[in-house]
Amino acid sequence: MGGGGAGANSGGSPAGARVPVPPARPFLDTFRANLKETFFPDDPFRSVVRERGAARRTLAALRYFFPFLEWAPAYTLGAFRADLVAGITIASLAIPQGISYAKLANLPPILGLYSSFVPPLVYALMGSSKDLAVGTVAVASLLIGSMLGSEVSPTENPALYLHLALTATFFAGVFQASLGLLRLGFIVDFLSHATIVGFMGGAATVVCLQQLKGILGLERFTTSTDVVSVMDSVFSQTHQWRWESVLLGSGFLFFLLVTRFISKRRPKLFWISAAAPLTSVILGSVLVYLTHAENHGIQVIGYLKKGLNPPSVTSLQFSPPYMMLALKTGIITGVIALAEGIAVGRSFAMFKNYNIDGNKEMIAIGTMNIVGSFTSCYLTTGPFSRSAVNYNAGCKTAMSNVVMSLAVMFTLLFLTPLFHYTPLVVLSAIIISAMLGLIDYQGAIHLWQVDKVDFCVCMGAYLGVVFGSVEIGLVVAVSISILRVLLFIARPRTTMLGNVPNTMIYRRMDQYTTAQTVPGVLVLRIDAPIYFTNASYLRERILRWIDEEEERTQGKGEMGVQYVVLDMAVGSIDTSGTSMLDELKKTLERRGMQIVLANPGSEMMKKLDSSKVLELIGHEWIFPTVGEAVSSCDYVLHSHKPGVVMDSAAAHENMV
Amino acid sequence: MGGGGAGANSGGSPAGARVPVPPARPFLDTFRANLKETFFPDDPFRSVVRERGAARRTLAALRYFFPFLEWAPAYTLGAFRADLVAGITIASLAIPQGISYAKLANLPPILGLYSSFVPPLVYALMGSSKDLAVGTVAVASLLIGSMLGSEVSPTENPALYLHLALTATFFAGVFQASLGLLRLGFIVDFLSHATIVGFMGGAATVVCLQQLKGILGLERFTTSTDVVSVMDSVFSQTHQWRWESVLLGSGFLFFLLVTRFISKRRPKLFWISAAAPLTSVILGSVLVYLTHAENHGIQVIGYLKKGLNPPSVTSLQFSPPYMMLALKTGIITGVIALAEGIAVGRSFAMFKNYNIDGNKEMIAIGTMNIVGSFTSCYLTTGPFSRSAVNYNAGCKTAMSNVVMSLAVMFTLLFLTPLFHYTPLVVLSAIIISAMLGLIDYQGAIHLWQVDKVDFCVCMGAYLGVVFGSVEIGLVVAVSISILRVLLFIARPRTTMLGNVPNTMIYRRMDQYTTAQTVPGVLVLRIDAPIYFTNASYLRERILRWIDEEEERTQGKGEMGVQYVVLDMAVGSIDTSGTSMLDELKKTLERRGMQIVLANPGSEMMKKLDSSKVLELIGHEWIFPTVGEAVSSCDYVLHSHKPGVVMDSAAAHENMV
Repeated sequence: MGGGGAGANSGGSPAGARVPVPPARPFLDTFRANLKETFFPDDPFRSVVRERGAARRTLAALRYFFPFLEWAPAYTLGAFRADLVAGITIASLAIPQGISYAKLANLPPILGLYSSFVPPLVYALMGSSKDLAVGTVAVASLLIGSMLGSEVSPTENPALYLHLALTATFFAGVFQASLGLLRLGFIVDFLSHATIVGFMGGAATVVCLQQLKGILGLERFTTSTDVVSVMDSVFSQTHQWRWESVLLGSGFLFFLLVTRFISKRRPKLFWISAAAPLTSVILGSVLVYLTHAENHGIQVIGYLKKGLNPPSVTSLQFSPPYMMLALKTGIITGVIALAEGIAVGRSFAMFKNYNIDGNKEMIAIGTMNIVGSFTSCYLTTGPFSRSAVNYNAGCKTAMSNVVMSLAVMFTLLFLTPLFHYTPLVVLSAIIISAMLGLIDYQGAIHLWQVDKVDFCVCMGAYLGVVFGSVEIGLVVAVSISILRVLLFIARPRTTMLGNVPNTMIYRRMDQYTTAQTVPGVLVLRIDAPIYFTNASYLRERILRWIDEEEERTQGKGEMGVQYVVLDMAVGSIDTSGTSMLDELKKTLERRGMQIVLANPGSEMMKKLDSSKVLELIGHEWIFPTVGEAVSSCDYVLHSHKPGVVMDSAAAHENMV
Repeated sequence: MGGGGAGANSGGSPAGARVPVPPARPFLDTFRANLKETFFPDDPFRSVVRERGAARRTLAALRYFFPFLEWAPAYTLGAFRADLVAGITIASLAIPQGISYAKLANLPPILGLYSSFVPPLVYALMGSSKDLAVGTVAVASLLIGSMLGSEVSPTENPALYLHLALTATFFAGVFQASLGLLRLGFIVDFLSHATIVGFMGGAATVVCLQQLKGILGLERFTTSTDVVSVMDSVFSQTHQWRWESVLLGSGFLFFLLVTRFISKRRPKLFWISAAAPLTSVILGSVLVYLTHAENHGIQVIGYLKKGLNPPSVTSLQFSPPYMMLALKTGIITGVIALAEGIAVGRSFAMFKNYNIDGNKEMIAIGTMNIVGSFTSCYLTTGPFSRSAVNYNAGCKTAMSNVVMSLAVMFTLLFLTPLFHYTPLVVLSAIIISAMLGLIDYQGAIHLWQVDKVDFCVCMGAYLGVVFGSVEIGLVVAVSISILRVLLFIARPRTTMLGNVPNTMIYRRMDQYTTAQTVPGVLVLRIDAPIYFTNASYLRERILRWIDEEEERTQGKGEMGVQYVVLDMAVGSIDTSGTSMLDELKKTLERRGMQIVLANPGSEMMKKLDSSKVLELIGHEWIFPTVGEAVSSCDYVLHSHKPGVVMDSAAAHENMV
């Protein structure tokens, strides 16, 4: 290379030799820009602001909050036909699932039906997903059951328990809507994919284990959810197992799994698995009715009240001592439910290539739960299984939710007596078959192959849920995830860059075998923002790079390190970072080395300037590219004046 | 640009057109390498491993754990003379400060002297800093006082209180040493510079306010530390203020501040401020002795037992209910003390250009506290003020600690009766004058100028300590700091890159005004690792960039976006990140755009490969530099075959 070599290369200075320091902007401007970038990255009100006139803007704002205003005017008969089919299909799934999941939350079965009536209507008005099918979910139901059940017994005090579940739903809704309104939707992102795989798998395992009670026909059962307690409870009362129950349960489970297998093989036959739960319920009920099996140890649902949702505003509990319990339950289950709903909405939006505004979705889901808590519904969201059926059934808009809601309304008004003889063991079989689909063992294998740490997060969540409790699993997984991010920030990778022969390009020496070191110049790249968590690590690591390089060159009798070029391409720095550079500069100066910075961004230049580090290092030692930085060092070295700070303009003239 | 333009540029392909996928390494190898990089970044055993033979290695290991073996053999009389002066100087500071800080922790004053005798000896053997002067610190003393005092009254149950303080010291030592042994020293780094400025300032303010009791001569005083309670306590009993006490206190405070001012102006006169506290103590004691002021409302220290530290192993409390309190106090105060000790050691090592191994220091500080807790010493570390005096007094090695320790021993054996008449108000003046130096208002101004968020962290810590409690301030500051890191990871900056005319270089368009867009190609740069916390944000942000660019070009009638080039220079990716790229690729494909990656690192290539995203995007769409990536897209565009995937080798031949 050398000065001459650099001169021959046209890829020299991009914007003059100096990296510009951006002009100072008023604090409020910067603050506003940062606020916007943090909380409104998707610029949601673009469509509103673009309109002119108050009336048009109001209409645009209404369209923003009520997306049905957008699709309803152009709604066609063809779309309705598709939504009708999809809506009836998901209703046939919603009814048995609703009853089953309500049992899982230790709530009256009728609540499951109530919850499939009002919330879907709200979502149809406010939701922006075309494929989400609203309903209760197994994991959140289990969580409500275990969290509330730890303090209030659902058998001894069913009224209080019910009121707390509704209050928790209310708080969950308020929390979800607030997250959306405050644009804090990114909190949901802290549940990583790995966390969700492990957590869902663990929750599904736990739910399946709970169903052993129904399948084996046991009357007493542990209230704990961990595998040890459950197994102990199951095997300590083997004499209580009922063969009738086991037979019936296994039979229906087999039937359900076979239909699932068929639908998975041939997606066009989706309706086989979609209709299977309702078929099982009808078959099971008829069977019990005909054989009077309810007198032979087969437990049945029993009496279900006819009629629509009774209002429940006055049942909400806003006074101690139980309010805090409901609040805690609401926030935790709300986040879990939200995470599932948002993820499902996003996935299907991606398939059909439309956009979903996460924060807007949160407002919709939150509102639907608030309204739900006023009308005897417990926590709902967009479950994956039901939405997948909706999607496969060819739904076009949120109208399918309205159809489902009307079908459930019809059931509530006229058909509830039919469920009197439905055996609980069939519900257990339905839950198990739905849960087995949530155990994503292939996802776990994929995690192991791609990223071992993510696999640990996943297993942490899984084992935490299975051997501890749902809450413990969640805490374990979120902690490992966050620790991982912090550890990454605390221990960023630093790599030595080498020159790619005959170019001005510098690349990682461990990756590109042809890259070569430049004598007397050590080029390092830092792969993370320089923050308080890594500032002292980076100082030590950079000094170790220098020591190692000095040892290596001494061994070979080459020129020692005269210049340390840091590739600062990575965005950000804080005051601990600027202090670190300050100290590093002084330390290197004492060792007769010059520190050189390449390619710092505008924000970093601003902070280097305001912290006076720019002055200390010297603006002439900051270059837009690594190539230029090294050429400049190299030029000084080759003119036999190592360590002499030359005028940068002169250096630049010589170079280009 | 165009294909021809690119061909004319010599800065083309660095390592062939393909970015290599690193060969698969056995999991254990990678794991071991990562472990080493995370926990042993400074390669501490280099010197041990390099030696040959068991005997030499043992000696090297001993030298590693007992650094005095390294300097003692070469210790000279000249160095001893310097250490003697420094040691006596810091002893004259240690004696009054020790007594004062013990009062701050509500412990018997004699404990402050004990704590300046044993721990410095241990540190002299094991510590690697040449400048650290060991002793008790104000903030940790206050914390011990407030944490233990909240459950056990030091006046009603002094024996239990003392035993708990010693037990807390033991746990602090064990925790500190474990952090060092487990190489978890980086935990201390989570206390950022801004946190420490705010926290120390707040603690100093609180400590000063507490001294109003002594200065005003009050007998009753609040046990809370927040400013509201203290002010209430002070102004509700104005009739109890003693003018004698106020006069004496203000006089000595003025004297101490003047000496501090002189020493700050002329660092050579450091001994004036170093000797001032002892002078004040002697003057104050003489004054009280002559005027019998102890009978006129001036409180004095009273009887101090002669003799060296009594053993206290049997006093440690390892049984409930108080063990958990001691454990909690020990861990929190241990971390705070450690942070100060490590920071002080590092700062002075930087001045004198030698290295300090943080983890080794932690073992030394931890051991000194464990041994201390066996010999009636409470928590010690390396206080900044005392170490600064040590440094200014010209200390050469840790021998100055030994000299100080011997001077304190002499005091304990013969001079304790002299402190009988020392007025408490002088101790208050000494504490205030030391604390005022800890309120680093210039540091806070610097934070405001450089980084507003850091300033918020700092003020959060300060206000938390002053208006809440020391613990609240600490929790607030650490939470804001960590939230900030997480928010940074959740909202990375994305910027559009433009081509610098006549080069192959691409730079941020908002920073370099000359940079130009290439028609049909959108080049984006992501300023953070792609992690679960930002994956969905990045997907949405990238899509918004594309939408905006499409709108812009449509308005001008230019070519729409055909290629999206992502500059992946930033290091890392996890499974959520690879899924995001997977989804992004599919979404863009549906819109007829091609995704192109530039400059991914080896680790990223490995993960892209194992997650099959590499296959999906196509290895031919991954380039070592942005320049090459754009040239390749440009070539396709200009041969009028947009969207056609061409053979990469052919493209490469055409280009270079």
